[in-house]
Amino acid sequence: MTHPRTYVIVGGVAGGMSAATRLRRLDESARIIVLERGEHVSFANCGLPYHVGGVIEERLSLVLQTPAALGARFGLDVRVSTEAVAIDRAARTVTARSVETGTEERIPYDALILSTGASPVRIPIPGVERGLALRDLADMDAIIERARDARRVVVAGGGFIGLELAENLRHRGLEVTVVEMLPQLLRPFDVEMAHLVTERMRAHGVDVRLGTALSAIEPDHVVLDDGAATLEADLVILSVGVRPDTALAREAGLELDERGYLVVDARQRTSDPAIWAVGDAALKQRAEGGAAPVWLAGLANRHGRLAADAIAGRAHDAVPAFGTAVLGVFGLTAAVVGRTERELCEEGRRIRVIHTHPSDHAGYYPGATTLSLKLVLDADTDRILGAQVIGENGADKRIDVIATAMAGGLTGRQLADLELAYAPQFASAKDPVNMLGYVDDNLIDGEENVQWHELADRVEEGWRLIDVRTDGENAAGAIPGSELMPLDDLRDHAESLRGERVIVHCKVGQRGHTAASLLRQYGVTAANLDGGYTTWLAGTAATAAPILTGASRG
Amino acid sequence: MTHPRTYVIVGGVAGGMSAATRLRRLDESARIIVLERGEHVSFANCGLPYHVGGVIEERLSLVLQTPAALGARFGLDVRVSTEAVAIDRAARTVTARSVETGTEERIPYDALILSTGASPVRIPIPGVERGLALRDLADMDAIIERARDARRVVVAGGGFIGLELAENLRHRGLEVTVVEMLPQLLRPFDVEMAHLVTERMRAHGVDVRLGTALSAIEPDHVVLDDGAATLEADLVILSVGVRPDTALAREAGLELDERGYLVVDARQRTSDPAIWAVGDAALKQRAEGGAAPVWLAGLANRHGRLAADAIAGRAHDAVPAFGTAVLGVFGLTAAVVGRTERELCEEGRRIRVIHTHPSDHAGYYPGATTLSLKLVLDADTDRILGAQVIGENGADKRIDVIATAMAGGLTGRQLADLELAYAPQFASAKDPVNMLGYVDDNLIDGEENVQWHELADRVEEGWRLIDVRTDGENAAGAIPGSELMPLDDLRDHAESLRGERVIVHCKVGQRGHTAASLLRQYGVTAANLDGGYTTWLAGTAATAAPILTGASRG
Repeated sequence: MTHPRTYVIVGGVAGGMSAATRLRRLDESARIIVLERGEHVSFANCGLPYHVGGVIEERLSLVLQTPAALGARFGLDVRVSTEAVAIDRAARTVTARSVETGTEERIPYDALILSTGASPVRIPIPGVERGLALRDLADMDAIIERARDARRVVVAGGGFIGLELAENLRHRGLEVTVVEMLPQLLRPFDVEMAHLVTERMRAHGVDVRLGTALSAIEPDHVVLDDGAATLEADLVILSVGVRPDTALAREAGLELDERGYLVVDARQRTSDPAIWAVGDAALKQRAEGGAAPVWLAGLANRHGRLAADAIAGRAHDAVPAFGTAVLGVFGLTAAVVGRTERELCEEGRRIRVIHTHPSDHAGYYPGATTLSLKLVLDADTDRILGAQVIGENGADKRIDVIATAMAGGLTGRQLADLELAYAPQFASAKDPVNMLGYVDDNLIDGEENVQWHELADRVEEGWRLIDVRTDGENAAGAIPGSELMPLDDLRDHAESLRGERVIVHCKVGQRGHTAASLLRQYGVTAANLDGGYTTWLAGTAATAAPILTGASRG
Repeated sequence: MTHPRTYVIVGGVAGGMSAATRLRRLDESARIIVLERGEHVSFANCGLPYHVGGVIEERLSLVLQTPAALGARFGLDVRVSTEAVAIDRAARTVTARSVETGTEERIPYDALILSTGASPVRIPIPGVERGLALRDLADMDAIIERARDARRVVVAGGGFIGLELAENLRHRGLEVTVVEMLPQLLRPFDVEMAHLVTERMRAHGVDVRLGTALSAIEPDHVVLDDGAATLEADLVILSVGVRPDTALAREAGLELDERGYLVVDARQRTSDPAIWAVGDAALKQRAEGGAAPVWLAGLANRHGRLAADAIAGRAHDAVPAFGTAVLGVFGLTAAVVGRTERELCEEGRRIRVIHTHPSDHAGYYPGATTLSLKLVLDADTDRILGAQVIGENGADKRIDVIATAMAGGLTGRQLADLELAYAPQFASAKDPVNMLGYVDDNLIDGEENVQWHELADRVEEGWRLIDVRTDGENAAGAIPGSELMPLDDLRDHAESLRGERVIVHCKVGQRGHTAASLLRQYGVTAANLDGGYTTWLAGTAATAAPILTGASRG
């Protein structure tokens, strides 16, 4: 084409702005117009909770770019407080309306990118208008304003943003209650892992209520749906999920899924060949197949760049998403990639699960802390389906390594052979990720492990439960029905167990592995309690009754 | 076989002890005998420098296992202060001699594992006997004893252990000089990266002397080989490399390479089918082909387990080694995997090199620090050949991610699509590893970068050098011969540059990329100075003259 092309981008954060700057680098001659309904583009939405808590002191540091700066550097025509209100697909125009004056303008486009995001769900309960949600700087300002005079806060929703807000409001000295409808915090984690976060929240004075939801918000309290219970509250935060902001797309007749997310192809193109969509409003291809919303800034940026490439004639396909995420809360890091045991069991998949609790670095070097890792594998192919890592230090590193292994198609067993950087202050000579691979290797070679939620059934079936820890460890807390046989004395007992079915357990599973290997050689049918007493304790503390029967596990 | 098998392991640290415990788990009936010349098995050799500096306070914490504990738990017959002095391969016996009494015993074996390690090189100079080396606890004790009354230390050798010792001796308040024969510290790094460590050492008061070596050690000083220079020294540490401890293997007629390292197959078997070798005494298969010594604890452990598996009839092949390593020194972390630009250029390989200097986490979240990353790629296949990352925080994480990507066979470009865990305190939405992938993608798509050591030649050839930073940045320090055209004004100058050959540069390379993209669209032949002013400054500060002409670069 000889005339300069016009690209219009609706939404000036993350995906939208990545697309705009990339388009400029690829096409110096184009008109590039960014329409942003809010007052700011390119603000740091992931930083908002931390300004509420004062961790990020300077409000302006959250505004990463201004329209003027983007104009000077990239020649972008950035219009804030400007809403896109209609798309005429036949004429290829988008109608922009000034939020302040109501003035409208029809802008012709050669290509249109929708990066309209998702907004907090407003639950249909009386008084919902009294609750505050957090999406942008204006929301943040409102929360800070209200928090100044507040004493008791209820945060509805135990997801990432809810917990970040809970921590930051606690930093401000408020009394904080988190109310979560599910029986656990943090849906991307399994219950026994999420429990570590629940414990940490409670240790820092946050009241965590699980399996209950708000049924009404009154001026000075909220009502819970589990009876007549109420919680005093002079500030209520609503963080119970998001819905896609796709009214504009819907009216234009673009294809949406049943929840309203924009359907896109592998190059981020919608059902209209001149319209692309990126970010939280668009579905993502999942690595495990199918499409789902994945609300992550990294994917929004990447897909913004990808849409720009496609528009500029350099089309390539998006890599399917695993969903890698991390949360920091009260000094604890909780990181996750891929699928949970819960989801996969619900789907009837044959899986293999491994829990470990190693030190983040060599125990003899000062400052070592415990990491809790969980790996979920396809029982037949050894493909890595998901991982969860929680601890004070190094959890993000291990999830990044496992996410990279998944991207490279490595199997669980191959984690043993990864060459990871070792010096005693950073890791162990066998890194926690290597150890997961070693455990997996042992399981593939015929060892059996038993999950915490399978233990009761096994004991019911007549398996003996043997604690191979020391007398002192056993005295400090033991699994009901277990018999104590410390590992270093186990050879003396081995012959007497010949022919029996036995589950051994230690604190974290490592001595249990040695014990099970030993007993098998004496003709004992021996399985090892995965993750040991530590995982069992977290799992049983998190659940009144076993929540998984394990029937579908491999 | 019906009689219990006997396995003898020579060397009870890392690889040897991994083999012994693994053998026990696989074969409860076997006799397993470990011969260790020193007083301790399973000591934390990587922790030794940190007890010298008092970081690890408790000496006993470095002794991870005792013969008695290993006997109780694993039924191992561990004999310390016992040296293996001869192997009779025909009879399958090894002769063990007590270090204290000289008593000898011939022990028959079904399989023998050599894990004899490597010992510090003693350089052939007058007074070498006055120098101390660090290999085991006895060496460590000797250094601590001598350091008590010392004031000035010379550490010969700027490798990992030399620098760890230098830091720890400095912690003790000593005046420390490091003398390194090479023109840089840390041979596994390239010179402009290693320079960051040199600077950090000097900032903490360590005198670093490069390109010089000791020619004599006198009681109160050392003599340097670069003339008549001397350095006062009441303690001299020798850390100039190691040689394999393979005299036993040589006398037994096992195949060694020209440097004396044991040649092994992919299952760690030596030229004698009943003898295996692991750890620092054995060669490692390199991922890039060929075999080389790689002195890393992780590989020693892994290969110990592998040898045990092979002996127990569960043979599988070792995964070739990349050589991943990390050093912490004075708050700086320097991590590396794979090959250097220097080595690959010497081999005439066509490579592509990328330097970046991003923040370790989002700049708006407190505590962000700069990481310096270097990625070395095969110019034709985009295969990742090596990486180096240096910074205060998160360097180990990024190297682990890249090492895992290498293990998974990901290309440089595919690093852009890795889904890495993001929250503002842990990373950026585009992680530094993702950014390397984006830069690589741009280079594959036709952008050109110029290395710091190629700049002089280009300017000589008539390329103009344009600084696109701000006036203030330029005033604070500029490359001689550069012209200032700040990025935000560059469009005004672009037409005037049409048809010219131009190298643009900014502080780290990111604005340079935007500038080069812009100029190319105006008909300018534009290349970007890789890593910007920052890499150029480090490289030129580290070298009096360019050390690479870049002729072989892709």
